[in-house]
Amino acid sequence: MFSFELHHRDAGTAARLSTFHTPHGPVRLPAFMPVGTQGTVKGLTVDQIAATGAQMVLANTYHLALRPGADVVRDLGGLHVMMGWQGPILTDSGGFQVFSLAERTVVTEEHAVFRSHIDGSTIELSPERAMEIQQQLGSDVAMVLDHVVALPCSAEVLREATERSIRWAARCQAVPQRPDQCRFGIVQGGLDPVLRVQCAERLSAMEFPGYAIGGLSVGETPQQMRDTIAATMPAMPADRPRYLMGVGRPEDLLMAISLGIDLFDCVMPTRNGRNALAFTAAGPVRLRNLKHQRDPQPLEADCPCAACRHSRGYLRHLFMADEMLGPILLTIHNLTYYQRLLAAAREAIAADRFAQFYEQRMEGYGKSGK
Amino acid sequence: MFSFELHHRDAGTAARLSTFHTPHGPVRLPAFMPVGTQGTVKGLTVDQIAATGAQMVLANTYHLALRPGADVVRDLGGLHVMMGWQGPILTDSGGFQVFSLAERTVVTEEHAVFRSHIDGSTIELSPERAMEIQQQLGSDVAMVLDHVVALPCSAEVLREATERSIRWAARCQAVPQRPDQCRFGIVQGGLDPVLRVQCAERLSAMEFPGYAIGGLSVGETPQQMRDTIAATMPAMPADRPRYLMGVGRPEDLLMAISLGIDLFDCVMPTRNGRNALAFTAAGPVRLRNLKHQRDPQPLEADCPCAACRHSRGYLRHLFMADEMLGPILLTIHNLTYYQRLLAAAREAIAADRFAQFYEQRMEGYGKSGK
Repeated sequence: MFSFELHHRDAGTAARLSTFHTPHGPVRLPAFMPVGTQGTVKGLTVDQIAATGAQMVLANTYHLALRPGADVVRDLGGLHVMMGWQGPILTDSGGFQVFSLAERTVVTEEHAVFRSHIDGSTIELSPERAMEIQQQLGSDVAMVLDHVVALPCSAEVLREATERSIRWAARCQAVPQRPDQCRFGIVQGGLDPVLRVQCAERLSAMEFPGYAIGGLSVGETPQQMRDTIAATMPAMPADRPRYLMGVGRPEDLLMAISLGIDLFDCVMPTRNGRNALAFTAAGPVRLRNLKHQRDPQPLEADCPCAACRHSRGYLRHLFMADEMLGPILLTIHNLTYYQRLLAAAREAIAADRFAQFYEQRMEGYGKSGK
Repeated sequence: MFSFELHHRDAGTAARLSTFHTPHGPVRLPAFMPVGTQGTVKGLTVDQIAATGAQMVLANTYHLALRPGADVVRDLGGLHVMMGWQGPILTDSGGFQVFSLAERTVVTEEHAVFRSHIDGSTIELSPERAMEIQQQLGSDVAMVLDHVVALPCSAEVLREATERSIRWAARCQAVPQRPDQCRFGIVQGGLDPVLRVQCAERLSAMEFPGYAIGGLSVGETPQQMRDTIAATMPAMPADRPRYLMGVGRPEDLLMAISLGIDLFDCVMPTRNGRNALAFTAAGPVRLRNLKHQRDPQPLEADCPCAACRHSRGYLRHLFMADEMLGPILLTIHNLTYYQRLLAAAREAIAADRFAQFYEQRMEGYGKSGK
């Protein structure tokens, strides 16, 4: 029910055009997944999500397991039925949130134990339990449970966490899986290229149908991120989808695509949209700025989204007046911006001109001084 | 550019079927206007508003004059262009808010002076200024400025405010108007049937193209509201639209339609929707109730709205998790509920069976013990 179809490699970069087939339809890669943490992309109906061009969405296992509970999601028909989203869904394993959101987390070889950030209750998350929860959620792609450490940390702590992530990946794989769900392995190893390659090679041997690079976009510089991805990619199986977790800015996506990454998720377009920051080809626009007060122009004249049927002046008014429609419209615009960027990237790859496309887009971002 | 076309009077009640023609299209009456206080029906795009069946929306002069300012709305092309709403728009005069929301309001014969509830600045609102602001907003229907008093009050205070409202209506009418905007007079008089009839008769002589009953739904009992409307209606011109301001519950709408009212606005469907209360033919449903946790059924099986494509369990989850989509979907459902109710009422009038329709619907509301 899952397969990866490689269509074309860009002539000038490592970028590639492919399709990932799932039980809920194909995903043309490279692709960006909007984040629907609690089973909803904040403020958008599923029709509005689809209208942005999104093909696949991400939901967070940690949040859904805590509320409403994975068994409740199962009883409501699983994530697809509950959300009303008919396309593919990927769920993370909860590992990242256990180490970033939860309180008093203690990790043993057996499992992570932590307190819920919602009600303080004690919860155990093992590789086996992470698989069970994601089976109840019913996503198309489940992620293995990994051990994420905060950077910087000692080489010894990093090595131990990476080794444990590999052992946990094996335990995840040993859990019987539902036929309409597949699992992706997650390559860890911080900013250590040797550790990253070792991890990628050991996971490759396990033959996951897809692989992610985890543990980036956690405070490292863009150059460090790039170097780490570049060092890891040769060890990532070329005949599987390659997913860069939690990244990132438009320029990060283009950089990673040029290195051969196929799949992304990030809260950046949605969270920034709720905070009145709009992405445009000419760089970010802060809608609360007084200069937009009487501006009759849309954010982007060529953008087909619902926000761009309005003036910047109206969008500013909505934010100044604390109206929900401001965050909603800017979320729609930013997601549309990301999806149009990815669609343009796919076209550029198909035409063997991704390098030029990348360069042109970076000039636009540079204009705004970002 | 404005006209009123009476199609049919119900055989068993005073209900009537008519069309109000405006420069932005016809409105089939009886009709309900969703409230877009700050130039947005909270949480909904204009496409979503239209999908509920709404024909005409209301915006609040007081709020828009304070923020972003009527001149800013004008510079952004007026309300229709700014909101992206192509249908008719009615603006109130700001009178009600001056007496309910503003601080330290002082009324003289010349004008009302008050402090903004947003920044405390001192603002004057005269009949002439209320007309000027609404001309800048560019609504299809502008309401005259009236003097609203809190009930209960002495007979003397009520009479004075009513007399002043009549004088202010004449001052509003004396202001030159833009050709694409008309003005409705507002009948005041509290719960005093004699004062109401006198006010209606004096305003009728001024030949406004439409008339409203104001100052109700402010704490009086349903019986008092009904008695006041019933006493006033014979003095309201039958060849003009008759608008009951700020009312109300579904049962209030049906009652008022049976007495010959044509037009309504109320925050009830939107405000209640944001607070997790859904209207259904079987009475109100409180979505936060635990009993909905695993309920796979929609709010109403025959409702075509976006909310009713989801389970009650999912809607409950959205509210418990403080997700914007909860208020959005319930606003959509409640407005759809109101619009379907009005559409059914129009059909019943056309078929001369409004009395039976009214009775049947009231039975449904009774079931929930409301």
